[in-house]
Amino acid sequence: MKNNLIIIKVGGGILNDNRLFKIFLENFSKIKETKILIHGGGIIASNYMTRLGIPPKLINGRRITDEKTLDVVIMSYAGLINKKIISVLQKFKCKSLGLSGVDCNLIRAKRREVKEIDFGFVGDIQEINTDFIEELIKLNITPVICSLSHDGNGQILNTNADTIASKIAVDLSKKYDVTLKYCLETDGVLTDKYNPKSLKKTINFKEYKVLVKQNIITDGMIPKIENCFIAMKKGVKNIFIGNHNIIKNENDCTKLTIE
Amino acid sequence: MKNNLIIIKVGGGILNDNRLFKIFLENFSKIKETKILIHGGGIIASNYMTRLGIPPKLINGRRITDEKTLDVVIMSYAGLINKKIISVLQKFKCKSLGLSGVDCNLIRAKRREVKEIDFGFVGDIQEINTDFIEELIKLNITPVICSLSHDGNGQILNTNADTIASKIAVDLSKKYDVTLKYCLETDGVLTDKYNPKSLKKTINFKEYKVLVKQNIITDGMIPKIENCFIAMKKGVKNIFIGNHNIIKNENDCTKLTIE
Repeated sequence: MKNNLIIIKVGGGILNDNRLFKIFLENFSKIKETKILIHGGGIIASNYMTRLGIPPKLINGRRITDEKTLDVVIMSYAGLINKKIISVLQKFKCKSLGLSGVDCNLIRAKRREVKEIDFGFVGDIQEINTDFIEELIKLNITPVICSLSHDGNGQILNTNADTIASKIAVDLSKKYDVTLKYCLETDGVLTDKYNPKSLKKTINFKEYKVLVKQNIITDGMIPKIENCFIAMKKGVKNIFIGNHNIIKNENDCTKLTIE
Repeated sequence: MKNNLIIIKVGGGILNDNRLFKIFLENFSKIKETKILIHGGGIIASNYMTRLGIPPKLINGRRITDEKTLDVVIMSYAGLINKKIISVLQKFKCKSLGLSGVDCNLIRAKRREVKEIDFGFVGDIQEINTDFIEELIKLNITPVICSLSHDGNGQILNTNADTIASKIAVDLSKKYDVTLKYCLETDGVLTDKYNPKSLKKTINFKEYKVLVKQNIITDGMIPKIENCFIAMKKGVKNIFIGNHNIIKNENDCTKLTIE
């Protein structure tokens, strides 16, 4: 029998709200199973960029990362956000370690090739160092991973946090029963976005496709959910999408199902 | 017999010079013994503070760290500088892990009491988690530690990197034969600061006191060297002060001696 592993990706809306941030981390620290937290921090990076006179550029929700942008992204993700998370988790007696994909070669990536768009210093994941994650788990350390990777040749790369969460979940599914939870600002998949009561408690691939056609699932939610179904096919046992309460309560969010 | 451990504190002048930065890290990666790197990054933090419209405040070389300053310090030390170091070390195949004193409770500190000066969010070290450092060493991981600590209650604190280096060196001396090297912009202790040939190859406490009286050792070098002599009394085996070549060559720098 495999051990359970809970992987949680926390969104920018929670990171950027002091009250939710603390509630979320207190709940996270109470998870008894082995756990991993994954975060980005685009809102906070964009705020600092604006203050530094560097205009944030996004195409379809993906950041164009030139050299100056990359520096602010590294500072925000691996510095400010990651260390603030760790300091709060330590307060709640969670033995946590802040990581980027650069540390111990955790996430090796390839700089995205220029096609129609030059995304700049953006990396597509090639390999996760799962041996290192397992070494930490054996030491009862909770990894808190920010969304940066590297090319192995001295270049840090900006990498989508959802994709990192999904790739780590898939790769660790060989050894663990993995539950992956995406914590967002919304309650999950709503069929009417103005009515929280329209929450779909479960969704399968067919239903998802219909909701995309009906323009109910749109924008950034499309690649997020698409990725989730791929991850499930590749062995991730459970995937949930919901708000910050998802850690404690799996009933008021959306559970993805194969059938 | 104890194993050797090399602890290197690298100064801002090297971190801030692209060419020296790479030479330094390449040499560091070639050290065969167990090793730890410790850094701050005051110059880079001050640059970002100026760009963000936060005036840097320093008294006797020590930074007054208000809330906004602390955020920039965290971003610069644990984010930009730490991760850039790691990405270069990974290139040189050094299995390195970037840490702050917050991670796994590595450095617990107490916020400095307000006496004549309110230093703000500045921490005086209470305890180093040497167990965690040893766990990493057993995994052949090279820790790269930036100069932040925490109070265990959710507050990150700015802490002097020289002091961290010296405290870690002392605490690990119980289990290792520790050599501590301070890499600065200067070649070591010079009796005539305009003449590199006046380098003192060794210095004992008496000679140090005389040079302070003669105003030859001044400013920030006084607490640095004072701390070194204390560290030697507490068990650190060798201490060297010199430029970036100190890693490869222990002859062209200043070695502190007990007698």
